[in-house]
Amino acid sequence: MRDVHVVGAGMTRFAKSTKSLKELAGEAVTDALQDADVSAVDIQAAYVGNAVAGLVTGQEMIRGQVLLRPVGIEGIPIFNLENACASAASAFHLGWQSVATGIHDVVLCLGAEKLTHPEDKNRGMAAISTAVDVELAAGMADQMRNGKESSQHSLFMDLYADWTKKYMQRSGATREDFAQVVVKNQHNGARNPRAQYGGELTVEDVLAAREVVWPLTLFMCSPISDGAAAVVLAADPGRRVNRRSPKIRASVVVSGNVHDQTDPTAGSCARAARLAFEAAGLGPEDIDVAEVHDATAPAELMIYEQIGFAEPGGGAELLASGKTRLDGALPVNPSGGLLCKGHPIGATGIAQICEATWQLRGDAGERQVEGARVALTQNGGGWLEGDSAAMSVHILTTS
Amino acid sequence: MRDVHVVGAGMTRFAKSTKSLKELAGEAVTDALQDADVSAVDIQAAYVGNAVAGLVTGQEMIRGQVLLRPVGIEGIPIFNLENACASAASAFHLGWQSVATGIHDVVLCLGAEKLTHPEDKNRGMAAISTAVDVELAAGMADQMRNGKESSQHSLFMDLYADWTKKYMQRSGATREDFAQVVVKNQHNGARNPRAQYGGELTVEDVLAAREVVWPLTLFMCSPISDGAAAVVLAADPGRRVNRRSPKIRASVVVSGNVHDQTDPTAGSCARAARLAFEAAGLGPEDIDVAEVHDATAPAELMIYEQIGFAEPGGGAELLASGKTRLDGALPVNPSGGLLCKGHPIGATGIAQICEATWQLRGDAGERQVEGARVALTQNGGGWLEGDSAAMSVHILTTS
Repeated sequence: MRDVHVVGAGMTRFAKSTKSLKELAGEAVTDALQDADVSAVDIQAAYVGNAVAGLVTGQEMIRGQVLLRPVGIEGIPIFNLENACASAASAFHLGWQSVATGIHDVVLCLGAEKLTHPEDKNRGMAAISTAVDVELAAGMADQMRNGKESSQHSLFMDLYADWTKKYMQRSGATREDFAQVVVKNQHNGARNPRAQYGGELTVEDVLAAREVVWPLTLFMCSPISDGAAAVVLAADPGRRVNRRSPKIRASVVVSGNVHDQTDPTAGSCARAARLAFEAAGLGPEDIDVAEVHDATAPAELMIYEQIGFAEPGGGAELLASGKTRLDGALPVNPSGGLLCKGHPIGATGIAQICEATWQLRGDAGERQVEGARVALTQNGGGWLEGDSAAMSVHILTTS
Repeated sequence: MRDVHVVGAGMTRFAKSTKSLKELAGEAVTDALQDADVSAVDIQAAYVGNAVAGLVTGQEMIRGQVLLRPVGIEGIPIFNLENACASAASAFHLGWQSVATGIHDVVLCLGAEKLTHPEDKNRGMAAISTAVDVELAAGMADQMRNGKESSQHSLFMDLYADWTKKYMQRSGATREDFAQVVVKNQHNGARNPRAQYGGELTVEDVLAAREVVWPLTLFMCSPISDGAAAVVLAADPGRRVNRRSPKIRASVVVSGNVHDQTDPTAGSCARAARLAFEAAGLGPEDIDVAEVHDATAPAELMIYEQIGFAEPGGGAELLASGKTRLDGALPVNPSGGLLCKGHPIGATGIAQICEATWQLRGDAGERQVEGARVALTQNGGGWLEGDSAAMSVHILTTS
């Protein structure tokens, strides 16, 4: 296996955008190619993550070919990958694999998503709700909502609320703890010009926001976002890779499985993290900065425990210690995370890689984690019988 | 790169089915595992091709996880691949790549599609029409149909009709030639218990069928089908691979590009075939049996020329020589092809691999090509600016 480096990164601002998916993808790809100092014709294969264009824009098929043709990428193998909110991480993983194994020397990995629809504001939410077994979903939603109608949130927020209640019972974490996650990530988002939201909030502000599903308020849920993120990967030890090109030390994708729901070390996230640490020869204590899948605020605390940043039940305590703040020893979600940077679902996994790349290069501006040499990203997608359907953990280091 | 073998193949009958996509996929996977003599827990990764479940069944995301969970496949990496009608070939290619490069030892590749909908008979056709740039498609369809309304066929049949007219001008091929392709493939389909159609037709029967779009009659167009096909790939030189396990000698996926439309050697099909022959160290003259993408009858003749079985313009002449008949020197589409075996679009690429496997093992029953030692499959998908969006060619040989 060869060393694979991220030699270029590009990303749109995440926002509710009037731009088309094609425009967003074009912007991210153009920036990534320019950052890598390569041309469209240098790209030997492309791995494209997108989750819901079929339902939102009607482009069910050949999404990558349609997005890449306007920037001059054609002829090469193009693979359209979907793994719900982990679509981009899956595309990145297969891109890494193809370079690591010597199939290709230079590849493009793109994640792009448009969740807003100009005429149908519920379409994005409805699309997101298909990241479960849809045959079983209707009954499940009815049961969870206890007969109450709701079109203001996806089935996923019902699921997250359910996990959160169980987590609160198990760990003693409170709504105030969840609000503190939002306060932290909003602070970070304010320092990220590509973030959808950011600013200084108080715990009271977060708790006073509209309730989505108890115990989650609006600020505790990641927003509807449009956006795209792209990276160029290469193994070439010559011109393309330089000391500014982070090295991919581990790339892991797994699926969920049936497991003990009360044990944070038993699910797909913990399993993917263990595999990634093993591949990298590193442990949780070696991580300098992490981007994790805070689709809701409590999820970030659960992920601390699943990855091994905290003991089981110790997520809130870790947060309260200040360690995961931007000025702490292990900043988590310096970009603002899904909560504040935004969550265009099929783009998120590669947006995390972009942030890791910029942090490791020292290019993260006001949100730079000083001396960051080891970065971890974690991106999950979908839901099936008590676990994420797809889960990914990546570890990158300075070259 | 390691040798990769097809150690098990399974396939449903292709038909307009009352079974769900989950039932169809489960049937194909169960058969493939049994044929390979492996258990669900032996599978280390799964590559799942499907094109339109999001639009037909509403399962836009985590399609593979939802299809594989009921047969006990969970926890492992599962990748959902889409490349329109070449979705399954793309899944197969990435499965091959992961075994050839040593990432995994035993993987599952699945293609599954349900085009019929119990309550909405136009839904499958509408879904198929998204295999183009949908932003441009509405205008294109209007222009091609010259204002005439039609919901009886997909935009793709308009495109195929347009290519066919140009091909007739260029090559001198006639509607009678196209009808002869149907006669040949119906004859073969009658010998395939998994084929949707089959029987003895005359040229007159084919020409007398309802016109879909001139010059294409109903029998010259592949049908709406449901079905699934799966293969198990392995590199293990021990228990799993035996003399009955065909070897994958070349696996190529490319995308289309802008090229001279009048030159059959310039497009993605010819390019993929050249790359495959180069990788295998073989040429068109070495092929004993081929399964090609006869989405329409004239397409089969064009593909003869693109692959190099015939000279440019010589497709009809090759057919007339009898060489591509079941009793000829180079039988093409012994399974009945897309025209008669059926075309559940995201399953077709792996169904072709199943047929190649059975032919090379001598398991093809009444349609067995005697002494077949080298098989080629060709599977294309989508349409973008004058070429297929995705194109795949595979070459398999006896072990």
